[in-house]
Amino acid sequence: MTDYDLKIAGGEVITAADRMHADVGIVAGRIVALGADLGEAARTIDAEGLWVMPGGIDSHVHIAQYSGEGIVMADDFASATAAAACGGNTTVMPFVLQRRGTGLRQSVTDYQALADGNCHIDVSFHLIIADPTPAVLGQELPALVKDGYTSFKVFMTYDDLVLHDRELLEVMRVAKREQALVMVHAEGYDSIRFMIDHLEATGQTEPYFHSESRPDIVEREATHRAISHAQLVGVPLMIVHVSSQAAMEQIQWAQAKGLEVYAETCPQYITLTAEDLRGLNMDMTGAKYVCSPPPRTKTDQAAIWRGLETGTFKTFSSDHCPFRYDAVDGKLNPQARTSFRWVPNGIPGIETRLPILFSEGVTKGRLSPEAFVALTSTNHAKLYGLHPKKGSIAVGSDADLVLWDPTRKETIRQDILHHGADYTPWEGFEVTGWPMITISRGEVVAEGGRVVGRKGHGGHVARGLSPVASQARGDA
Amino acid sequence: MTDYDLKIAGGEVITAADRMHADVGIVAGRIVALGADLGEAARTIDAEGLWVMPGGIDSHVHIAQYSGEGIVMADDFASATAAAACGGNTTVMPFVLQRRGTGLRQSVTDYQALADGNCHIDVSFHLIIADPTPAVLGQELPALVKDGYTSFKVFMTYDDLVLHDRELLEVMRVAKREQALVMVHAEGYDSIRFMIDHLEATGQTEPYFHSESRPDIVEREATHRAISHAQLVGVPLMIVHVSSQAAMEQIQWAQAKGLEVYAETCPQYITLTAEDLRGLNMDMTGAKYVCSPPPRTKTDQAAIWRGLETGTFKTFSSDHCPFRYDAVDGKLNPQARTSFRWVPNGIPGIETRLPILFSEGVTKGRLSPEAFVALTSTNHAKLYGLHPKKGSIAVGSDADLVLWDPTRKETIRQDILHHGADYTPWEGFEVTGWPMITISRGEVVAEGGRVVGRKGHGGHVARGLSPVASQARGDA
Amino acid sequence: MTDYDLKIAGGEVITAADRMHADVGIVAGRIVALGADLGEAARTIDAEGLWVMPGGIDSHVHIAQYSGEGIVMADDFASATAAAACGGNTTVMPFVLQRRGTGLRQSVTDYQALADGNCHIDVSFHLIIADPTPAVLGQELPALVKDGYTSFKVFMTYDDLVLHDRELLEVMRVAKREQALVMVHAEGYDSIRFMIDHLEATGQTEPYFHSESRPDIVEREATHRAISHAQLVGVPLMIVHVSSQAAMEQIQWAQAKGLEVYAETCPQYITLTAEDLRGLNMDMTGAKYVCSPPPRTKTDQAAIWRGLETGTFKTFSSDHCPFRYDAVDGKLNPQARTSFRWVPNGIPGIETRLPILFSEGVTKGRLSPEAFVALTSTNHAKLYGLHPKKGSIAVGSDADLVLWDPTRKETIRQDILHHGADYTPWEGFEVTGWPMITISRGEVVAEGGRVVGRKGHGGHVARGLSPVASQARGDA
Amino acid sequence: MTDYDLKIAGGEVITAADRMHADVGIVAGRIVALGADLGEAARTIDAEGLWVMPGGIDSHVHIAQYSGEGIVMADDFASATAAAACGGNTTVMPFVLQRRGTGLRQSVTDYQALADGNCHIDVSFHLIIADPTPAVLGQELPALVKDGYTSFKVFMTYDDLVLHDRELLEVMRVAKREQALVMVHAEGYDSIRFMIDHLEATGQTEPYFHSESRPDIVEREATHRAISHAQLVGVPLMIVHVSSQAAMEQIQWAQAKGLEVYAETCPQYITLTAEDLRGLNMDMTGAKYVCSPPPRTKTDQAAIWRGLETGTFKTFSSDHCPFRYDAVDGKLNPQARTSFRWVPNGIPGIETRLPILFSEGVTKGRLSPEAFVALTSTNHAKLYGLHPKKGSIAVGSDADLVLWDPTRKETIRQDILHHGADYTPWEGFEVTGWPMITISRGEVVAEGGRVVGRKGHGGHVARGLSPVASQARGDA
Repeated sequence: MTDYDLKIAGGEVITAADRMHADVGIVAGRIVALGADLGEAARTIDAEGLWVMPGGIDSHVHIAQYSGEGIVMADDFASATAAAACGGNTTVMPFVLQRRGTGLRQSVTDYQALADGNCHIDVSFHLIIADPTPAVLGQELPALVKDGYTSFKVFMTYDDLVLHDRELLEVMRVAKREQALVMVHAEGYDSIRFMIDHLEATGQTEPYFHSESRPDIVEREATHRAISHAQLVGVPLMIVHVSSQAAMEQIQWAQAKGLEVYAETCPQYITLTAEDLRGLNMDMTGAKYVCSPPPRTKTDQAAIWRGLETGTFKTFSSDHCPFRYDAVDGKLNPQARTSFRWVPNGIPGIETRLPILFSEGVTKGRLSPEAFVALTSTNHAKLYGLHPKKGSIAVGSDADLVLWDPTRKETIRQDILHHGADYTPWEGFEVTGWPMITISRGEVVAEGGRVVGRKGHGGHVARGLSPVASQARGDA
Repeated sequence: MTDYDLKIAGGEVITAADRMHADVGIVAGRIVALGADLGEAARTIDAEGLWVMPGGIDSHVHIAQYSGEGIVMADDFASATAAAACGGNTTVMPFVLQRRGTGLRQSVTDYQALADGNCHIDVSFHLIIADPTPAVLGQELPALVKDGYTSFKVFMTYDDLVLHDRELLEVMRVAKREQALVMVHAEGYDSIRFMIDHLEATGQTEPYFHSESRPDIVEREATHRAISHAQLVGVPLMIVHVSSQAAMEQIQWAQAKGLEVYAETCPQYITLTAEDLRGLNMDMTGAKYVCSPPPRTKTDQAAIWRGLETGTFKTFSSDHCPFRYDAVDGKLNPQARTSFRWVPNGIPGIETRLPILFSEGVTKGRLSPEAFVALTSTNHAKLYGLHPKKGSIAVGSDADLVLWDPTRKETIRQDILHHGADYTPWEGFEVTGWPMITISRGEVVAEGGRVVGRKGHGGHVARGLSPVASQARGDA
Repeated sequence: MTDYDLKIAGGEVITAADRMHADVGIVAGRIVALGADLGEAARTIDAEGLWVMPGGIDSHVHIAQYSGEGIVMADDFASATAAAACGGNTTVMPFVLQRRGTGLRQSVTDYQALADGNCHIDVSFHLIIADPTPAVLGQELPALVKDGYTSFKVFMTYDDLVLHDRELLEVMRVAKREQALVMVHAEGYDSIRFMIDHLEATGQTEPYFHSESRPDIVEREATHRAISHAQLVGVPLMIVHVSSQAAMEQIQWAQAKGLEVYAETCPQYITLTAEDLRGLNMDMTGAKYVCSPPPRTKTDQAAIWRGLETGTFKTFSSDHCPFRYDAVDGKLNPQARTSFRWVPNGIPGIETRLPILFSEGVTKGRLSPEAFVALTSTNHAKLYGLHPKKGSIAVGSDADLVLWDPTRKETIRQDILHHGADYTPWEGFEVTGWPMITISRGEVVAEGGRVVGRKGHGGHVARGLSPVASQARGDA
Repeated sequence: MTDYDLKIAGGEVITAADRMHADVGIVAGRIVALGADLGEAARTIDAEGLWVMPGGIDSHVHIAQYSGEGIVMADDFASATAAAACGGNTTVMPFVLQRRGTGLRQSVTDYQALADGNCHIDVSFHLIIADPTPAVLGQELPALVKDGYTSFKVFMTYDDLVLHDRELLEVMRVAKREQALVMVHAEGYDSIRFMIDHLEATGQTEPYFHSESRPDIVEREATHRAISHAQLVGVPLMIVHVSSQAAMEQIQWAQAKGLEVYAETCPQYITLTAEDLRGLNMDMTGAKYVCSPPPRTKTDQAAIWRGLETGTFKTFSSDHCPFRYDAVDGKLNPQARTSFRWVPNGIPGIETRLPILFSEGVTKGRLSPEAFVALTSTNHAKLYGLHPKKGSIAVGSDADLVLWDPTRKETIRQDILHHGADYTPWEGFEVTGWPMITISRGEVVAEGGRVVGRKGHGGHVARGLSPVASQARGDA
């Protein structure tokens, strides 16, 4: 009789705090032992020379989400979770999007149906509240929180999603009462519309002008406003995908005042700039870099790095939002060619997030290995109520692991990726450090750049309350 | 044959990142396994209901240190390490004080002799550089760094210790070259002397005026100056015992600019205020609270808490600096009764640091258990080059542990403490959470408030380079 | 034949920059000479012992303004300008309020009709834009600017006045094109409504809760938002009636970044606090202090003083907004007694502004006499395009003067005032320094606390463009 | 019989607050009337088309000052005041430099002897305290303040001048007691020496490295330190020649806290950069730009402009400190060629200050004419106790005037200047706006670029106390 179903032998185990040379023993999908020299296992994976880290948790991805009339998101749950697994992730957190006029519970049910049987790794849903009716605020949200949907996302822009200030305040009040965590997309709707109209009226319609239509002022203002609303209500706040120094400084100002403001940033804000939107000779390839907030400047990149190094940012997510560039006849869809306003807004990144941060952060000496684990996995689990089930290499935790080769050099190319998009914004980007094997609850789901698990292995995970929303503050 | 020399069974293991219900298996003083149900052990300690945490590391203590003509520090290595062990600590880091005119190597040798055979737990020495001669800077320091004395402390005040700016810069330059970490006591000497002379000249000599002689302006200015010097040289800096909002804001300003500035605070700055120095009816009991920087105001306390909660401070130390209040005939020494200037400057706290932070921080919901471990142990080990040997519950790490009862209520009283001082500033202070058993390299050294180990079990630990000093920045 | 129509002899002339012992010679309502010993005049006023200063300009007053169904403002042009003159003012700047559905030109015409023949001193109108239709933005505003209405006021709160963000941006764009100056009432509408509903729902309806319904967070947020919009458009901005340290810090932050943000504060924010709204035993007398933003705390007062002393604020206005406390049967109107929401929002202050700032500022040594003149007169003239016709004691300027006794002690009491309100919030407030004679274009209009001029002496003054709006920045 | 000795007819009179088209009538060297059409005068100057402004006051110039063994300052009182007059100035304020071991009274007497009979315009002396002995602090300074030497300057760097912190504090204490104003040269001595030694040791000795030897960190640190000392003592502080954004931000931080900190900047910090020190092909012409603090970057220039525009800086001075470039055999002196350390430290600027600020500020629309007058004249008079005798165009003030052609274009060239230096750092700099006639106490002293007055017309002016030092704060 063996002691373990699976043993990861001889690797360098890295957690958000510690590192150790140890075997990891797994039974029934959970970690049961860490030891210098564990006993027999039904299967042993030799991790000599590899780092064994908690599998990545990507708390900000968009999968199979309604994106407007006639626009199809390029990933369904199968492709997105396969790509995530190949990129070293073991949990992704997409959004249930409530369409106006639709109940939130119904939205959850519909979205769950898309996921059922299709996931290679575990998923857990946030709730996008686009129509905060009394029924949503009074009945549906309390019930959904009890069912484990413990985070709400609100938007301060986008025609179909924007909540006005009173609605933001009302959602925050419910979050406070139900102890849910509010995530906010902070860009000011009116200002953006004002800019778009002006740019279009003056014929400035190429993809590049997407970045001019939402300058950092707009992100900074919305960030300040969201913080003020949260302060008024007395509720913690997570500001997602922070792109600019100006917005970050608002967050640092709030944190220094003792407000419970948390922040996330993404690969695009440490590696891309607005110049990437220019494309080649102002052709439409700039469209491949259209996302919101847009990439900024080198100065902003340096500031965002400081925020990652010093703890301003707790999480590093992909904001994966995949579209096909050649959606129609191998070309960008005709409407999108008329104005940046119609370019599908989002870029794919679910598979490249970990290598980019590892290479730019750990390999280049900006981040410790432990900080990498915290930013890509453990802090996500803690902030969103998945810890210690997820995000840890600890006795009793799910055996969600990535075996990482810290010295392997790779060049990111579309043809080695598994997502549904038809391009990657990081084509040709060179990295040192690469995921070799991804293990979800004790099963190998990806190995050597290939999906080896099965659809349906992964499922939805109900979450507990976020500690930062449910109790006095801590170090998330 | 048993698998383990010692097994800690059934406790809640807490690290700086994770928590798990697990046994800890120990062989030859080191942790070899963490598991759900480990095998046989020669000795098993039942930790049911207890938290198993890395033993406290106190990176700022003064033991048997020369303190001026005729003043005897109240603790030698035996009493200090016994008290530390009873307080849940497994490593303390006192200072080799170089007296002017003495070589640094000689100072180390002399100090080591005091420690040899007397320590209940491990110790590791910082170097106080009071006389940075060319020989010290050019020969002694490089050699001592190689021998594992990898942190230097410099003072910006005190007659016998103060370095002027050029000396500070020269020490920093050596630290940069040798990759050692510089710790700084940041209070401005000239300003303090100016204030003391003025206060004495106007007859304001009671212990309370100690606090007026070194207002927060003086700490803020020296903090800014030390940061500027470190920036000029290009070297990381650790600012110890930060007491005031004003000084903390300088640190936050520096961190936001991307400077590698680290900070420490202490129990006195979250629990005491300058009012405590008034004593009873202005008798001399205020002398029991004389330390530098002095305790400040409630507003400062709140600010320091924000700094602990949000990561401005990486370490929480005691700055244990013990003197006997009734040094002469059961009374404060006669000279000290003439002016605060002569009151021995320092307070004891080696044994009470952990319960105070646990109770005020974790029990009251300000800090997570993981943050408590980081602030009291892991971050000390990381910053000062002891990690992962110390500061972790990880396979391969020293079995330095404290078994903690998170619900036990105690009242701090001098008569339950083990230090050499004849009072505690926290007499009557009530806490929830208490160390039950302290284990050093696999041996129980304190249990139930009694020392059960033996002098000589502990020894000096040579350290590696501080990661923050020797490489690109990380999350210490 | 005499040289002058009027000579002010032997006074201490104070300007925003200088002081001199000099006579002032006036012909046909304008200053023609300043001299050590001027020649003959038809009338000579002995100003020995008095200070001769530019008459006060109050650039923020509400007169005979529509204030909602059934609410009558307590001052018409006759009473308001009489009170202003007795308080040492020579020009007041009320607002043409556009009611929704009404054209702006029509609003101006209607308002002018109320003023015609009724003014004791000169008036000049700002335009409140409450309905920025294309016709208003495209035709009316450009024409009105040309006619000398060169400042626009916009509101971020109040049911009948609030502009949403897109409207604010559009008005700013017109202001930029037409070189008009935008004034903004910065409080966030949605947040206030959210708070009011909550307070009413929990029965917190006494006047005091007016202050809780619009905390400084709400003012700070709107201030940041308005600044961001102005930055996006590239237009200077005047933030009126700043009440809190939090809002002021936003302004200072913007100014330090080089943004052209100007600010005004008022007597209520340096002398009253939210406690004044409590009234006597929570009776309704607290209603006498209801204004928006509400008075804050002593800490805010100290901050606002720093702003006055250091130049953050360019103008000090009254925000005179007079209502009768005993509107119905000698009592607060019945609806207002049911909730602070219905208490008429505004306090009278047109007559007391100058003595309060003089006494608290100049007499108490916080402000130089020159700074007093700048804050109460010259800077108003400069910012709003009245300079050098108004706001100066200079050859060629209108002879708008106040003769001031800097040593005279008075107690402010309703029974010595001339406004239409039936109370003053400063009842019993003691001041040192008092206006003795007010001269408008060479005619004495008030003397010894009595109106001595005639209705109709004053008229509307068309203004030039604001220098800060029409050219590169200067020291307004 | 005429009414006036001199009449300036038909000019545009500009004060720090106002502008007016008026004649200026002068009797016995003082202004006695301003009027639309003044009567007869013995002499009339037609100022049609010219601006009539208060003559420039340069509160920071070095004349005939001991500058180290063998170094001769290029200007004596005759040449310096001639050049100042040609540049539109009517008062300059050089420094009595106390050499160590010399009494301060003796230093004043010696310096006065150099001035006597040699000045074309008025002068008034600050006191440099380099040796604050008990006699200086206790007897000499009180007596000198009574005699009208009401400002002290202290240095935080330079071998012969540097005061250590305790000395700075003691001088400040005396200043507080005697109500004198403290001016400080804020650069850190030890840091500079540290840098110089390092640069020389590595062979980096060209003039450019002067700028590297005193980076903005060094100025910022000393600025913070000086502010802290002034705060501790409770005394206002004037920080002279601020060159960098970093130092300016310290000043703004202090001002926002309500500390009475004043600041000055100079032409070199808005027009030159460190690149100018590179010279041509690294020859020694870079030596012509060596001054301290050194010119910085374009970014710093933009920041300093913001400080001028928004009132952070009260005064704009030249820091005229003239040396001959070709001191020996038509070449830079031999020692100076060996290292930047020996290059005479200072640049000439007494004659070019006003045209540079006018052209870059007023002509380019950054500053109003009134702000120009305030920054170059009125504020100097106010801060240093010369007002209203100097710095004003007001009845009773000295007739110290400059008649300025705001449209005249000139190119600054050494061959049109009158100073003793053999070069100007602004050779070839084009300006719009030029001083045409300079009038000192009613006498024309310069006209059309020529000295027309006589040596000895000017004399020393004893000053009153600085209002900011002697009473509650005001708007200086």
